[in-house]
Amino acid sequence: MTDTPRQPERFADLVGYRLAQWRDDHAEIVLALGPQHVNRTGRLHGGVLATLIDAACGYAGTFAVEGRPRNALTLALTIQFLAPAHAGQQLTAIGRRTGGGQRIFFAAAEVHDETGRLIARGDGTFRYIRTDG
Amino acid sequence: MTDTPRQPERFADLVGYRLAQWRDDHAEIVLALGPQHVNRTGRLHGGVLATLIDAACGYAGTFAVEGRPRNALTLALTIQFLAPAHAGQQLTAIGRRTGGGQRIFFAAAEVHDETGRLIARGDGTFRYIRTDG
Amino acid sequence: MTDTPRQPERFADLVGYRLAQWRDDHAEIVLALGPQHVNRTGRLHGGVLATLIDAACGYAGTFAVEGRPRNALTLALTIQFLAPAHAGQQLTAIGRRTGGGQRIFFAAAEVHDETGRLIARGDGTFRYIRTDG
Amino acid sequence: MTDTPRQPERFADLVGYRLAQWRDDHAEIVLALGPQHVNRTGRLHGGVLATLIDAACGYAGTFAVEGRPRNALTLALTIQFLAPAHAGQQLTAIGRRTGGGQRIFFAAAEVHDETGRLIARGDGTFRYIRTDG
Repeated sequence: MTDTPRQPERFADLVGYRLAQWRDDHAEIVLALGPQHVNRTGRLHGGVLATLIDAACGYAGTFAVEGRPRNALTLALTIQFLAPAHAGQQLTAIGRRTGGGQRIFFAAAEVHDETGRLIARGDGTFRYIRTDG
Repeated sequence: MTDTPRQPERFADLVGYRLAQWRDDHAEIVLALGPQHVNRTGRLHGGVLATLIDAACGYAGTFAVEGRPRNALTLALTIQFLAPAHAGQQLTAIGRRTGGGQRIFFAAAEVHDETGRLIARGDGTFRYIRTDG
Repeated sequence: MTDTPRQPERFADLVGYRLAQWRDDHAEIVLALGPQHVNRTGRLHGGVLATLIDAACGYAGTFAVEGRPRNALTLALTIQFLAPAHAGQQLTAIGRRTGGGQRIFFAAAEVHDETGRLIARGDGTFRYIRTDG
Repeated sequence: MTDTPRQPERFADLVGYRLAQWRDDHAEIVLALGPQHVNRTGRLHGGVLATLIDAACGYAGTFAVEGRPRNALTLALTIQFLAPAHAGQQLTAIGRRTGGGQRIFFAAAEVHDETGRLIARGDGTFRYIRTDG
């Protein structure tokens, strides 16, 4: 019997991050950096940090209160890259909802390495969408 | 003999995009969207588009003229998400250098689907770094 | 009878810019730069360029078709500062609507000086709001 | 003798904001909102908030330690508009340097009204420039 590698079913699986904490207006994403996350110059790809910030911000604004799950679309995302990170490190992205209302929400996220160094920051602007069923 | 799946060596391989065109101040990146690029709601993950925009902008400013390769770090990146995209589509990100000098460069990128629809736009601010050797 | 200087009634008057062209999905703003637009180091204040970009983007998405005026709120704005500009120059900001639908629109703007040099670029994300009356 | 109104000598005077606190990595800007700060729909112009955020971020990274003043250019600026503000309110923009080194710095700013409500947030990316003399 062959142990077939599981095909990633979504981008979180492909990149390898996971949702570590999720509560109202707050989300934490963790990612262990490996060689698959670097760019052609051996540095962490900016897209990895953008992915973590988008995810942390998106989760922060869509926590399901009283069983009503919410979905949202990212309208705009900004990222600043403050310090380098390397394969072998673990990153934590902490997102928090900073404002908005019933249709739009705003969130901010910071990404730190395991020493607490600030690696990246970002803001997301989101629109809530209706969920079917 | 076992056909072991190749371990991705960098983020471009993991995500699956490739550099299709590269000349001075211009770069084109293509990506065939699959199920591994979607988020928990079945929509294209914002991180995928951010990755393409970061890559297209970064390449656009670092084309090697007369054999002098240049490297750069992303300082800041912004993305707008204008229209949905789906697994099965092919995306093209076209980046162009819009300004800057010897130490800093600016670039903009647009991502279209194969029908020409504008899916995302973004701007990157980069700092050139010295390459060893 | 004293000739009292007119009190600016809105920010456009205070800054001194005017709407030079306005049609569907397109707007042009012009501003003659004076000493009142510089910062403490004698350079053009970034806020001036942000103001022009916000205005050009906002107008580009709210042109009144068939007498139905539209208003909008800026949700998010990004600006890149590509080249210096100086008092005595005239700037033109050209904004165009790049996407969106009935509730949200996206716009981009570029600011050039009178020689055609690109001074700044930016993107705005807006939400349409209902107008009373 | 005629009491000639003083011609604003820079954008801070024109807009009417002032630097209320300035120390290493930190700056606070205050502005009393008047009718001259609104747009054509009677709402606070986005450019006013962008101006405060650019100023607060810029000051936060350029505090003069041991008499060595520093100047900087804004490379990129992002702003999110979270809640409305009105003429008659006083806004405070608090900027803090979030990272960087000898050539580049990053800063973030938040703008609150006098009730503490978060009105706007933003990030700036700056390049230090040499000062003459």
